Amino acid sequence: MPEDGHMRTDVHLLSMAHPGDVSALDALIRSGAICAARIVAVIGKTEGNGGVNDFTRAYFTQSLMHLLARHLGDEPARLAARIPCILSGGTEGVLSPHYVVFCRDQATGDDDGEGGALALGLAFSEATPTERIGRASHARQVADAVRAAMRDAGIERTSDVHFVQVKTPCITVARAEEARARGVEPVTGDPNRAMAYARAAGALGVALALGEIDDDVLSDAALLRDMHLHSDRASVSSGVEIAGNEVIVLGNSPRCNGPYRIAHRPMRDALDIHAVVDVLAELGLQASPQIDGASLQRIAGVFVKCEPQRQGRVRASRHTMLDDTDINAQRHVRGAVGGLVAGVIGDGRIFVSGGAEHQGPDGGGLVAVIANTARDD
Amino acid sequence: MPEDGHMRTDVHLLSMAHPGDVSALDALIRSGAICAARIVAVIGKTEGNGGVNDFTRAYFTQSLMHLLARHLGDEPARLAARIPCILSGGTEGVLSPHYVVFCRDQATGDDDGEGGALALGLAFSEATPTERIGRASHARQVADAVRAAMRDAGIERTSDVHFVQVKTPCITVARAEEARARGVEPVTGDPNRAMAYARAAGALGVALALGEIDDDVLSDAALLRDMHLHSDRASVSSGVEIAGNEVIVLGNSPRCNGPYRIAHRPMRDALDIHAVVDVLAELGLQASPQIDGASLQRIAGVFVKCEPQRQGRVRASRHTMLDDTDINAQRHVRGAVGGLVAGVIGDGRIFVSGGAEHQGPDGGGLVAVIANTARDD
Amino acid sequence: MPEDGHMRTDVHLLSMAHPGDVSALDALIRSGAICAARIVAVIGKTEGNGGVNDFTRAYFTQSLMHLLARHLGDEPARLAARIPCILSGGTEGVLSPHYVVFCRDQATGDDDGEGGALALGLAFSEATPTERIGRASHARQVADAVRAAMRDAGIERTSDVHFVQVKTPCITVARAEEARARGVEPVTGDPNRAMAYARAAGALGVALALGEIDDDVLSDAALLRDMHLHSDRASVSSGVEIAGNEVIVLGNSPRCNGPYRIAHRPMRDALDIHAVVDVLAELGLQASPQIDGASLQRIAGVFVKCEPQRQGRVRASRHTMLDDTDINAQRHVRGAVGGLVAGVIGDGRIFVSGGAEHQGPDGGGLVAVIANTARDD
Amino acid sequence: MPEDGHMRTDVHLLSMAHPGDVSALDALIRSGAICAARIVAVIGKTEGNGGVNDFTRAYFTQSLMHLLARHLGDEPARLAARIPCILSGGTEGVLSPHYVVFCRDQATGDDDGEGGALALGLAFSEATPTERIGRASHARQVADAVRAAMRDAGIERTSDVHFVQVKTPCITVARAEEARARGVEPVTGDPNRAMAYARAAGALGVALALGEIDDDVLSDAALLRDMHLHSDRASVSSGVEIAGNEVIVLGNSPRCNGPYRIAHRPMRDALDIHAVVDVLAELGLQASPQIDGASLQRIAGVFVKCEPQRQGRVRASRHTMLDDTDINAQRHVRGAVGGLVAGVIGDGRIFVSGGAEHQGPDGGGLVAVIANTARDD
Repeated sequence: MPEDGHMRTDVHLLSMAHPGDVSALDALIRSGAICAARIVAVIGKTEGNGGVNDFTRAYFTQSLMHLLARHLGDEPARLAARIPCILSGGTEGVLSPHYVVFCRDQATGDDDGEGGALALGLAFSEATPTERIGRASHARQVADAVRAAMRDAGIERTSDVHFVQVKTPCITVARAEEARARGVEPVTGDPNRAMAYARAAGALGVALALGEIDDDVLSDAALLRDMHLHSDRASVSSGVEIAGNEVIVLGNSPRCNGPYRIAHRPMRDALDIHAVVDVLAELGLQASPQIDGASLQRIAGVFVKCEPQRQGRVRASRHTMLDDTDINAQRHVRGAVGGLVAGVIGDGRIFVSGGAEHQGPDGGGLVAVIANTARDD
Repeated sequence: MPEDGHMRTDVHLLSMAHPGDVSALDALIRSGAICAARIVAVIGKTEGNGGVNDFTRAYFTQSLMHLLARHLGDEPARLAARIPCILSGGTEGVLSPHYVVFCRDQATGDDDGEGGALALGLAFSEATPTERIGRASHARQVADAVRAAMRDAGIERTSDVHFVQVKTPCITVARAEEARARGVEPVTGDPNRAMAYARAAGALGVALALGEIDDDVLSDAALLRDMHLHSDRASVSSGVEIAGNEVIVLGNSPRCNGPYRIAHRPMRDALDIHAVVDVLAELGLQASPQIDGASLQRIAGVFVKCEPQRQGRVRASRHTMLDDTDINAQRHVRGAVGGLVAGVIGDGRIFVSGGAEHQGPDGGGLVAVIANTARDD
Repeated sequence: MPEDGHMRTDVHLLSMAHPGDVSALDALIRSGAICAARIVAVIGKTEGNGGVNDFTRAYFTQSLMHLLARHLGDEPARLAARIPCILSGGTEGVLSPHYVVFCRDQATGDDDGEGGALALGLAFSEATPTERIGRASHARQVADAVRAAMRDAGIERTSDVHFVQVKTPCITVARAEEARARGVEPVTGDPNRAMAYARAAGALGVALALGEIDDDVLSDAALLRDMHLHSDRASVSSGVEIAGNEVIVLGNSPRCNGPYRIAHRPMRDALDIHAVVDVLAELGLQASPQIDGASLQRIAGVFVKCEPQRQGRVRASRHTMLDDTDINAQRHVRGAVGGLVAGVIGDGRIFVSGGAEHQGPDGGGLVAVIANTARDD
Repeated sequence: MPEDGHMRTDVHLLSMAHPGDVSALDALIRSGAICAARIVAVIGKTEGNGGVNDFTRAYFTQSLMHLLARHLGDEPARLAARIPCILSGGTEGVLSPHYVVFCRDQATGDDDGEGGALALGLAFSEATPTERIGRASHARQVADAVRAAMRDAGIERTSDVHFVQVKTPCITVARAEEARARGVEPVTGDPNRAMAYARAAGALGVALALGEIDDDVLSDAALLRDMHLHSDRASVSSGVEIAGNEVIVLGNSPRCNGPYRIAHRPMRDALDIHAVVDVLAELGLQASPQIDGASLQRIAGVFVKCEPQRQGRVRASRHTMLDDTDINAQRHVRGAVGGLVAGVIGDGRIFVSGGAEHQGPDGGGLVAVIANTARDD
């Protein structure tokens, strides 16, 4: 972000017909509604299984980068290195495949004063060696990236940060083998377990950067153990398709203007409908019990993290997600929480990501919403 | 039901630790809180996959009947023939395995006057031949059973009926082969498709008996085709474990007394949170957005039917449930709608059953709630 | 194929590390071992679920076409229109993701005389309207394409054809809706069922072209009904990613030379290990019970079709594939037959495709093998 | 087993139509072909998913024990405590649900001399505390039980033991919570991982008792780490339905007679068809490549353990079993190896159990066959 002058961040919520479909974005670029050169990040949900063998994320990314390369006359690989495309697989139940395109530009008007407007910052870290993935040093690497992304966003106060999306690499069977061949041991050889460790490192990295935890409580042993340590603003995905960490910081900055604002709430468990209603209210959207059509038009992005409660209970009752050999527990919880949030919003285009280790209260998660809060004139 | 005198129906909502666990009921019988001889029906959810090869239903039923046989000094098979145990498999997401035990007894007080109190009636039909399953004559067989169950409940007006649970037989590969060996053709040879046809027949049978459709619109071709034909009060399961149809009618009858009442609402789609809030309000329970702990204590049973919208959309957005080869579409929708309803109720012990063909509006479903509406004195 | 002069077909069996990985082919092109301009077809297996929502096929195809476009200085879309890339998803059990690249060139030596050498021919049909998919007219459209591909291969006698790979479009929920909006009805609205109908049409199209069935037995009603009608040389996949039919004919032609030959056998059921041993023996490879390492080096491609026996039995015993709501029946059978064939071959890089409706004997399937049968000199 | 006098063990291979179906055994008892009082053990495969939430095992066991209770005038719970019923869930692919009933009786003829005949011995251990499950002390507890079962079988030489079936308890989410509430930590909180640890303990217990490993290499750290430690004769299942360990030893004893003999082979990987052909040959059954119908009639039980190779390769090629979030890796490998063995045998009624940690060579497993080797007279 430039030292002086104002920025604005615009947000476009687009549907996809399949994981290779970027036609909605193509149309907006062709029409001039979006300037391809202003696109700085994409967050979305694709319809894979959300696990290690979910290739819909890489397929969408390849399709997106080829599209942008065509419009910008650049190489797909070079674009992928500077435009994070962070996808979560799994559109269980009523969830709908979609992507949110973030554009950043010099602002034409004044800054937005005290409340501020939506600001976005980016940072990329170097490749994380396989044996470091899911450990404390991985978290510290992420924390450095979060601080860099805050600077890029022009956000000074950590309280102005409302959502930090992190994508970390994970450990496949092949990577684990390669590491062992080098004489080092990955944190685990189980691919699904490794994704959990990687997400934990990302989340505690965010918590560290935002001051939600102190550095002295962060150790290898804390990851996936000290579950009270958490960030209420971290959302972490882990995927086979990247080698380093990608960080997108979203917040409100007094140095930005534009119609968009963001808010967030922790969710204490998978039934925490209060959190959803409250975050909407903060943005001026009334859910009683569902927001109306006009309010729905103002929604530019809904981001949710959640996870199956680890003791096998949701409040007083037993759940069966963790004992299910047929359906992955993360798929279960995304479907359930997605159903709840979509019911309050009235639309299934919600980024609901499982694997909320250290992201929100243990057994719960968090919700963040970006809305157009401009007054109708 | 006796010609004169009043009845009361009591309702017990119990958890199970696994599909063979009937210890909660055993404890209530041993303590005297439930008289085993008064148990007339059980409706519940077990944690199988809810499909053709879900044996958790039969396992729970076997366990239940052995328990009752021990308490009553009777044969399990004889008890199973008179006490319907209608189970839906699949506790996706936050749903919790549970069963609702209905007891019927002579009432000691006066009748409940105009509003009435919860009434329950039963009926069993003869075995449905495989080639008849899922066809119009199957629906008419179910309609006759619904009328018989209304008489058994002491309910005269169809408007006093709020929930009709039907269990129908389905067509396994083995049954289809047996039918073809006799020279007759089942409606389909695909087991999952056959379950859908069987549910359709059950639902239109209820609609016919309750006057929601006319007999002249009911034909073989109407099933799974004329989707505007439906009942807002039918809930149909289909399973390999039975040969005939079992019907439980639940309503409010002026000839009954006791603290329980039932209400229902159609759900227009999988996001219809209004229906859930409204049905609770009718029973005096305020969801804002979730009912409070005291209200939750009054809930004795929540029954939901739902289905994936067949055109692949939920309102404006595409869903992916029907194109998923990994997870059955019914599992998807149960998880999503279960998450929504559980979020309003604050508990996962909700009977959410997929396969809502002709049960509630097309692409939606229905919700019924039994609550203790007695005034606190 | 040119009227005079000889052709040769070369075959390259390559592994992939993930569905976007075409690096093995890239390396061979860069080294000069493969001339990109000579590549005429690709057949492979990717590691998706093999169902409607398997996007690994489209992802690999996109990756392949971008690679070839880079080497040939052409457009990916134009290449995709002339180079069929026919993929089957699902590498259950020991199966290994791989692709077989076919190159065709002018032969430098004499023709191969009576026995002939491997010949390959291609044909593409126009788009099949959704309402035509899975019906008799679809089969006739495929038959015309098979005849065209035989001419392209330089094969005159139908007995010289040993394997015909067909890819047909399928009916997604969206396509079915679009058709109904035009007032026409697709053969079925169920996506998995529609894939079966499409494969049936492709298979009977091959059978018609090769004289294995007569035209007068081919009717809409015959598809998925008259299961004794079949081709022992048809392999059909169906996928959302194409609109028309793609046909690859493989056989031995006296007008071709080169080291490769192809042979095939029907498989009478999923336990027909004799068929596998016999087809290898015809190519001079002795399995006792497994072929040795030197023989394995000669294998250039193994292609298998199979399906779950529809009456729920494999010989004397019940199987459970068709009643399983958790795992698609085609995934089950691919895993089992793949395990058997891989055990005889000693390698998991086998094209095993489920959905063998009318492809090989009912309840069985077929196996074809391409081997380098040149004498070691 | 009595000190003097001879024993014989008879084996009955029976099919089941569903997991509650014990009608085949019922018929044999009614006909007098089996004396219910002589039944000492049952090993079988049911059609669940083979995971933590596979309740088909408990359902079949309950059905079996109720049947035997009826015939013997005893209590089901008392029978279950003395007759081990060890089931493996998962009949992927061509595998067929079945059970093998073992009966033991005083022999009427002479002993069988040098070669010996099939002998069976049993042992039960006390409940294994949750925190001990999957650790070295668990293995030693199993080893003691194996030695006791050998004594019970009348087998003195460890080389006469050919198959040891062990069932161990596993750690569910609930059991893990209970342990933590007591202040002790289970080996892992992940249910699927816990089953692996429990199987590892069982396998190394067998290896210890049979002299395949020394006690000094057995430590907590060795489990699931030192994979070269293994038994070629151990088959271990783990299930929620039991609290202690159950052991069945099968071998050939010179003190027994009768027509049955048992043999075994390690399988070096999932493609080791040689092991299958060789074990059959040892029993006089020629597979070329499949045994003939008369030989198939002699097969009384086929028992296989296998597992997905942990480095993600089967010989030279990558497999995808361990990276699959949709289908559990054990289901994958059972289907593949089941397909191979069933292809050699010609029948799907094969006990194929995944989770072969320390059971057979790493990445492989083992096969044992019981056949009637009596000469036809």
